[in-house]
Amino acid sequence: MKNGIENGYYHEITPSGFGIAIKAGKVLFSKQSDFQKVEVFETESDLGRVLTLDDLMMTTEGDEYHYHEMIAHIPMMHHKKPESVLVIGGGDGGTVREVLKHKTVKKVVLCEIDGMVIDACKEFLPTISCGLTDPRVEIKVEDAIEFIKDKKNKYDIVLIDSTDPMGPGEGLFTEEFYTNVKSSLKEGGIVAAQSESPFVNKTEIKKMYDLLKKVFPICSTYTSNIPTYPGGYWAWAFCSESVKPLSYLDDERCEEITKTCKIYNKDYHMARFALPNYLKEIL
Amino acid sequence: MKNGIENGYYHEITPSGFGIAIKAGKVLFSKQSDFQKVEVFETESDLGRVLTLDDLMMTTEGDEYHYHEMIAHIPMMHHKKPESVLVIGGGDGGTVREVLKHKTVKKVVLCEIDGMVIDACKEFLPTISCGLTDPRVEIKVEDAIEFIKDKKNKYDIVLIDSTDPMGPGEGLFTEEFYTNVKSSLKEGGIVAAQSESPFVNKTEIKKMYDLLKKVFPICSTYTSNIPTYPGGYWAWAFCSESVKPLSYLDDERCEEITKTCKIYNKDYHMARFALPNYLKEIL
Repeated sequence: MKNGIENGYYHEITPSGFGIAIKAGKVLFSKQSDFQKVEVFETESDLGRVLTLDDLMMTTEGDEYHYHEMIAHIPMMHHKKPESVLVIGGGDGGTVREVLKHKTVKKVVLCEIDGMVIDACKEFLPTISCGLTDPRVEIKVEDAIEFIKDKKNKYDIVLIDSTDPMGPGEGLFTEEFYTNVKSSLKEGGIVAAQSESPFVNKTEIKKMYDLLKKVFPICSTYTSNIPTYPGGYWAWAFCSESVKPLSYLDDERCEEITKTCKIYNKDYHMARFALPNYLKEIL
Repeated sequence: MKNGIENGYYHEITPSGFGIAIKAGKVLFSKQSDFQKVEVFETESDLGRVLTLDDLMMTTEGDEYHYHEMIAHIPMMHHKKPESVLVIGGGDGGTVREVLKHKTVKKVVLCEIDGMVIDACKEFLPTISCGLTDPRVEIKVEDAIEFIKDKKNKYDIVLIDSTDPMGPGEGLFTEEFYTNVKSSLKEGGIVAAQSESPFVNKTEIKKMYDLLKKVFPICSTYTSNIPTYPGGYWAWAFCSESVKPLSYLDDERCEEITKTCKIYNKDYHMARFALPNYLKEIL
């Protein structure tokens, strides 16, 4: 069985032999960009519309907040005053939307290599992409590997909202790239990066953290549930030169953000760095 | 698409329109018992062998510890000296195996309605069922609804390791049953019950907790990841007359249990009662 839609069902089966199946509806958008196949389709499920890239699940209207709240608010709440934020990848706009909830934010740069992803999401996934038209947002349709090279001491927060470490996302999983990301941080800056499934992608996750640990003096991991990713469990790297996990949280800001979220709250935040034994052993 | 194996893949699609798919191998056991269809099959995946009942996923060799460590150790570690334990359902033996890791335990009663489940798991899932031959274990192939009626003040811990609230498990989700379970507890006793998926089964979970709250003065919820259940996220009820969540933990016992586990550790334990906003709203 190939990944993608066949006989009315979308399937994504990982190399480990299991994955997800969703009752598919009408295909709204399906084109090959310069980088990948971009597809948006309806589902006959509670999940609403789905975005896939190269037949791999990126996000759904019904569960996108599981991913976007976690990649944004965990690092953002560790910073005393995040003003300048860079989002790498994340063309669907969900991460930008969450970042914009923070009142301190003055500027968000979205650096996405594939303009077709942005355009398709603006048209077909408006509840996810809605933040992209905010005046604080600057969109750069560029390769982040090049973009980041000359950015020094510019961002309070960098969020690496990438695809998997194959295809156009591959170069975002290298020591050179992470070193440049570190240089782009202001003092007290924090990086969060999607870091694959602890259960399904044990080899990939080990490789990625081995590189991150070479670059960042503080490199930790937090996890949460994502219903539509195989295994339902996802990890993000939390990296910094000076900020330790759970070293800072402003209760008032936390309450404000919680009111706007379907998942995020203070208890949930505090619980995210507690990892299962098998994941601790890998890292 | 029907649940079960077809064209080389096992599918389980929930009424909400999405679910899991696993590359299936040889069917090792498939029979209709007096209660349900019992099936064990090989998979061509990291998950090893799988047990299904009425074509619904119960457990796999590859991820069973996600469920069994959580249903057992969270309540067990809240009790100062758990000696007498009742497991309701749980014919695969995984919950009993975890309970037996606690040195204080003198007696475990397994009350499973379907002897065929026990027999199939003893033959085909030995790494899961291995605890069932321990001399401390007494197996009762009986309907727990009847079994529990005359048990008063007998158990330190009752674990309701049931199927979903349809079919043979249905009567295990009623106020009358929960009332009898409460009566079966000794002073300081704790009940943990599998309570469906917070993401997929919002209606069922609300109904169940409404009943539990009528019966138990303390009724809380803890959650964890289960890769092979649709949505990958699962909840258990934690109920007691006197024991509050996170009110007790013996560090030394916790360390001992942690050494034997793939997931469970103190940090993970402490993090389990932190719930996402959407689940708090349901409960």
